[in-house]
Amino acid sequence: MSALPTYGERAYEGKAKIVFRRPDGTLAHYFKDSATAFNAQKKSEFEGKGLLNCTISCLLLDYLNQKGIPTHWLSKIDERTFRSKSLQMLPVEVVLRNRLAGSLAKRLQEAEGRELNPPVIEFYLKDDAKGDPLVSEDVLIALYRQKAADLETCRKIILDVNRHLTKLFAQGGLILVDFKLEFGRDESGTILVADEISPDTSRLWDASTGEKYDKDRFRFDLGDLLVGYRQVLERLLKSLGMEKSG
Amino acid sequence: MSALPTYGERAYEGKAKIVFRRPDGTLAHYFKDSATAFNAQKKSEFEGKGLLNCTISCLLLDYLNQKGIPTHWLSKIDERTFRSKSLQMLPVEVVLRNRLAGSLAKRLQEAEGRELNPPVIEFYLKDDAKGDPLVSEDVLIALYRQKAADLETCRKIILDVNRHLTKLFAQGGLILVDFKLEFGRDESGTILVADEISPDTSRLWDASTGEKYDKDRFRFDLGDLLVGYRQVLERLLKSLGMEKSG
Repeated sequence: MSALPTYGERAYEGKAKIVFRRPDGTLAHYFKDSATAFNAQKKSEFEGKGLLNCTISCLLLDYLNQKGIPTHWLSKIDERTFRSKSLQMLPVEVVLRNRLAGSLAKRLQEAEGRELNPPVIEFYLKDDAKGDPLVSEDVLIALYRQKAADLETCRKIILDVNRHLTKLFAQGGLILVDFKLEFGRDESGTILVADEISPDTSRLWDASTGEKYDKDRFRFDLGDLLVGYRQVLERLLKSLGMEKSG
Repeated sequence: MSALPTYGERAYEGKAKIVFRRPDGTLAHYFKDSATAFNAQKKSEFEGKGLLNCTISCLLLDYLNQKGIPTHWLSKIDERTFRSKSLQMLPVEVVLRNRLAGSLAKRLQEAEGRELNPPVIEFYLKDDAKGDPLVSEDVLIALYRQKAADLETCRKIILDVNRHLTKLFAQGGLILVDFKLEFGRDESGTILVADEISPDTSRLWDASTGEKYDKDRFRFDLGDLLVGYRQVLERLLKSLGMEKSG
């Protein structure tokens, strides 16, 4: 970490990112090479993962901004760092599921893969010490001072995001199985999409073979994590008409 | 069980009740003396529990009917059996919580007792084999063919029930901490309150001392279960102006 560039004052270090407060009041999100799973009980390092997730997140957040969905993303700083607005974060992780997988499949004791129509939206309390428990909107309102209208806004935005990203990934032969968003409020009170969107925070399956290209590769030892993440980036670049030359 | 009266064709045997289909098409709910907890991992018999729960359920369901909240309850048959309409059951258990307790307190890793304002409503899938998992309304709609409008009706009814029962129990010095309802649809399609309402399916605390008079006595070995259930019945009779003579 001694070689870490100086982006400003270190504001927060998470499992896969370090966030700095820049002198101009914006934030710098530096993507580490760490991977963690099962509430950090499983950990590893993958050289180049930070670069891949930063690149994918920049492409997706920039794409959403262009589609008129407001996100915190401002610009790329370097290959593993992007600049964003500084938001007042909501204490929730919002998950949208197009197919049954992960913790929901486990909770219902059902096999993965079944289509969810309409998509299922779930709220988790952002609290590592408590293991990010599943919470209803009622619980967020009664115990965590959230407003029903704000949670409704999160629902509306994540459905919009889903519409755009499902289509985008489908163009690259990928199924967007599920993904997590975080949200925050800017100075004017508007709720924006925050954090990252990457194979760390989503499930992406090959539309033909069902192969998993996301963090489940690491969670369940399904193959080289970087091979999967590179697939996601390559297909995304293709969908965006930005194929890498050489 | 050889001494069990004949109420009709045995339709269903649950952990604490046997349901019979009567010749006239209505149901007979026979309350057993069994107590089970933790998805039937803990079991015991309490002589007289069936009688207490049947009496309490009859008083409460009759009271709700009188208040204009439609329930399946029709009449008492004998001291541990009541007669009800036969409904098409919804595959959910709906829980309303006025205070933090039970599985929600455990999930949030918080102490019991905090007031929830507004009350929290939760849906659980009625499926013993899966351990009655917590499910969002989205999941019920996407995977279990429930209609949003019906779930909204359940919400509305359980809030009404809560308003009436909170007040009723308060008159007897009891706090209605939380309770579970089941719902079913009658021949005309109307959704009615079904099943029982008893200290097996609710949490009831003494308003002054906080003493628990419900099934948590059995779950966590807090004292004689029947002493608690008798307290509930006595206080309820008092609230209803039906004090037992002698």
